[in-house]
Amino acid sequence: MHGRMMFQPLLISSLIEHAARYHGDTAIISKNTDGSMVNTDWSTISDNAKRFAKSLNALGLKSHDRIATIAWNNHRHLESWYGISGNEMICHTINPRLFPEQLIFIINDAQDKAILFDKTFLPLVAGVKAHIPNVQHFIFFGGYDADVVQALPEALFYDDLIAQQTADFEWPQFDETTASSLCYTSGTTGNPKGALYSHRSTVLHSLAIGLPDSLNLSANDIMMPVVPMFHVNAWGTPYAAAMIGCSIILPGPGLDGASLVHLIDHYKVSVALGVPTIWQGLLSAAKAAGSKLTSMNRNVVGGSACPPSMIHSFRQDFDCDTIHAWGMTETSPLGTANQLKAKHHALSKTEQAQIRQSQGRPPYGSSLRICDQENSTRTLATDGQTTGNLQIKGHWIIDSYFGKSESALTSDGWFDTGDIATLDQDGYLSIQDRAKDLIKSGGEWISSVELENIALDYGADISMAAVIAATHPKWDERPVLIAVKAPNSPVTEAQLLDHYADKIAKWQIPDKVIFANSIPLNGAGKMLKKDLREQYGSVLIESE
Amino acid sequence: MHGRMMFQPLLISSLIEHAARYHGDTAIISKNTDGSMVNTDWSTISDNAKRFAKSLNALGLKSHDRIATIAWNNHRHLESWYGISGNEMICHTINPRLFPEQLIFIINDAQDKAILFDKTFLPLVAGVKAHIPNVQHFIFFGGYDADVVQALPEALFYDDLIAQQTADFEWPQFDETTASSLCYTSGTTGNPKGALYSHRSTVLHSLAIGLPDSLNLSANDIMMPVVPMFHVNAWGTPYAAAMIGCSIILPGPGLDGASLVHLIDHYKVSVALGVPTIWQGLLSAAKAAGSKLTSMNRNVVGGSACPPSMIHSFRQDFDCDTIHAWGMTETSPLGTANQLKAKHHALSKTEQAQIRQSQGRPPYGSSLRICDQENSTRTLATDGQTTGNLQIKGHWIIDSYFGKSESALTSDGWFDTGDIATLDQDGYLSIQDRAKDLIKSGGEWISSVELENIALDYGADISMAAVIAATHPKWDERPVLIAVKAPNSPVTEAQLLDHYADKIAKWQIPDKVIFANSIPLNGAGKMLKKDLREQYGSVLIESE
Repeated sequence: MHGRMMFQPLLISSLIEHAARYHGDTAIISKNTDGSMVNTDWSTISDNAKRFAKSLNALGLKSHDRIATIAWNNHRHLESWYGISGNEMICHTINPRLFPEQLIFIINDAQDKAILFDKTFLPLVAGVKAHIPNVQHFIFFGGYDADVVQALPEALFYDDLIAQQTADFEWPQFDETTASSLCYTSGTTGNPKGALYSHRSTVLHSLAIGLPDSLNLSANDIMMPVVPMFHVNAWGTPYAAAMIGCSIILPGPGLDGASLVHLIDHYKVSVALGVPTIWQGLLSAAKAAGSKLTSMNRNVVGGSACPPSMIHSFRQDFDCDTIHAWGMTETSPLGTANQLKAKHHALSKTEQAQIRQSQGRPPYGSSLRICDQENSTRTLATDGQTTGNLQIKGHWIIDSYFGKSESALTSDGWFDTGDIATLDQDGYLSIQDRAKDLIKSGGEWISSVELENIALDYGADISMAAVIAATHPKWDERPVLIAVKAPNSPVTEAQLLDHYADKIAKWQIPDKVIFANSIPLNGAGKMLKKDLREQYGSVLIESE
Repeated sequence: MHGRMMFQPLLISSLIEHAARYHGDTAIISKNTDGSMVNTDWSTISDNAKRFAKSLNALGLKSHDRIATIAWNNHRHLESWYGISGNEMICHTINPRLFPEQLIFIINDAQDKAILFDKTFLPLVAGVKAHIPNVQHFIFFGGYDADVVQALPEALFYDDLIAQQTADFEWPQFDETTASSLCYTSGTTGNPKGALYSHRSTVLHSLAIGLPDSLNLSANDIMMPVVPMFHVNAWGTPYAAAMIGCSIILPGPGLDGASLVHLIDHYKVSVALGVPTIWQGLLSAAKAAGSKLTSMNRNVVGGSACPPSMIHSFRQDFDCDTIHAWGMTETSPLGTANQLKAKHHALSKTEQAQIRQSQGRPPYGSSLRICDQENSTRTLATDGQTTGNLQIKGHWIIDSYFGKSESALTSDGWFDTGDIATLDQDGYLSIQDRAKDLIKSGGEWISSVELENIALDYGADISMAAVIAATHPKWDERPVLIAVKAPNSPVTEAQLLDHYADKIAKWQIPDKVIFANSIPLNGAGKMLKKDLREQYGSVLIESE
């Protein structure tokens, strides 16, 4: 017997319809690639999304065609997302920081029919054009531009396309499990693989991230997604923002600390989201500018583990509550977020802060377990101590990769994340390491993340820290710290190693500190440990 | 092309599974029918729900069978809900305040196979037994009880049933549009009609009511649903609480102000939900007890319009933020909730308070429109001024009533609520009246709700107020105020009418004030205006 309630498919178009209907005048403020600002609102975003959907139809594009975007977080990019997915096409966001060969691979693998791009990426697009024969349309995110015409004579102009259309368009209705968007994992080994999200998974994920124990999003919020829209759909925030009707500040290409501090203070941003490296830059810039980031009551940190010292600084110096979250491309991304429970009210501030350091617990719709490294379906204790392979299951978790016939799951239906973690009785997740970044010294595991956090805890002298497994003739592997000093810092190797002395067991202290000018990052802002291992992995053999 | 995300049906069992897994030790505190308290938790609720599911199977009950409950808000009732719906049966909550004939009609219409009941309702159940031949099992919510055996020899005992079962049970997986629960509207005209919810509608509704702009539910909350579980599933809060993992205080039969004040203060309730008449009693009791209701940071008022004076008193005297919400049995129930938007930050406290008086705006998943009274599909302006028939659409809105073949909707697919309302550009809903409670005086409409609010605004002298349309020889209808005075209040008819003078147009002022000892309420705590009209509707003719 079926219930007697209305059935409406959970479609991405229903999000923008809600925003246009009930939050039409809510501000969307966007920084263009040239640095100029645009003030728009949900009503206009919705109208332009409809115009663009009609433009796509006029170009002869069909349902399920993949339409790629290579763009910053800005209003045209936002409009195009709703225009593409709302119109039953698939929005393929491309990370412009990939190497051209990876870009070519991805565009061909996805069989993209059109590419939308910001001016920054004109050389990139023009450069790969000869190698992507499936692409029929190159659409520049802007109006007529002579540079664009010169580099890419066949280019179309987004502003002209939508100007030719009216906004009278009814979003098509279709099955909610239809594919909506595609995002490739940056993949440190092998070719990138695509995660293909559905309308249903996206809408359910939006509901889950809006909840008070996740990102706590309301129409009182002025949200700034610093995390790029090409990085797991800016963690789904552009969808959730429409669902909730909050205001968005889109920071465009300016992701340096000073630019972000200006946007936060000028537009009274209440919540911003990004990876730790972004926040490191922002903290320094805010201190330099004397800003207290008054409007920002919370920030969300994910993508990599957030050092406890950063959480502390946000709370102590800026009265800003850091929400530590965990997820990945394959998980849409929200797997966990760290908020307290009622039973924690009785704890001291210090004990509460301790709990808030982990990656948090799953919202409804996401389930976690840890399993044996040798036997991927043997579950381990959730005692907060036992480490194992982190596996996940839920409404917005990958089942199989785009274009692959084989399942991406364990034999009993869980996705193995490649992270090594503990889980406690309350569901709080603590990521210990990526499975491949653990250091195995004389048969014992050492967590590189823990060693990095201690280095960052040294203070402002150390701006970045990576710990890798270096080959060792006796212990197989030993930890080596690669650190980036703040300008003019006098800190020495001996001082840093001394800092470890009372914090961990002696055998876990790195064998060596290497001061580097920089640490290579991938397109998502994560440290490329594979590159570091190639560069420094033999340093203990050479020095002996 | 389908997305490549996992598909899991949105089932009610997934809510209790989440609570058991990640919030197992979170407290559920329940007042028994005899007044004793029980401390349990989500883990035990989950185990007992599984035991009860097995008991239902052992009794030979089948998928889709309707299992009725006549019970207060308590832990056994909560367990049974998950046991019934999780096991693909249909949980039919019955309002014990109905007349026996209505009770008989409902049980037979639903074809209930079993009835679960609290001791309070033993006489009721024993009294109707002879008229409900479909019912095969009478299950008492408790252990062996001699009174029960005497009145109802065939009765089974819930505690014994679950004691015979172990908790090793896997919830069945099935289509998410399967019926989960059934609730009849109290219906002031004609026979009651059943709203049949689905698993999908219930889970989506739970997500929506948890959002910050709805009830803002987190695992930091200690929630007390005062609204009965037989009244639109306690507004869906027992489902949302499991999804969120918050603590619940179940107040059992003691819904008087003093009992509620004690529970709030003793168990540190952070949010409570109920109808205005409940809050009226609670405000008096809290003032009498000298309680400041310190832990309660917000309360949710729905079921009937909340008088502005009540919202003011909660904020002013108790630092408690009242969330005014609107919904009905056919809408699961959440249609709207009142929270501000970012653009309102710039307004004065008084202007903000003014906005907060209305019923609020719809969350994602619920859409509203107002239509012409003569032409139910002609939409009217959303200007905050134009009144019309309120219609609603969404994932948890009724499509057709249980057992009826005809649609419950307009020809273009909206549900007409029977309320008369305005909507403004921001989606804020202001209920003016029930369509049938409007007063049509000389061709002009007068809102009874507005006149009632003015009467309640007189102060503590007036504890209840109802305005009805009385037949008038010249104007067809004229408003008459039926008011209940506070004990020993000296207020007179002339003083009350004088109070209207500078607040509304002269022709809208009631023709007469009648002081009554009480105003009849229906099972949901709503004033029975139909009864008042029968009693007082001719008072202007008689008096002329």
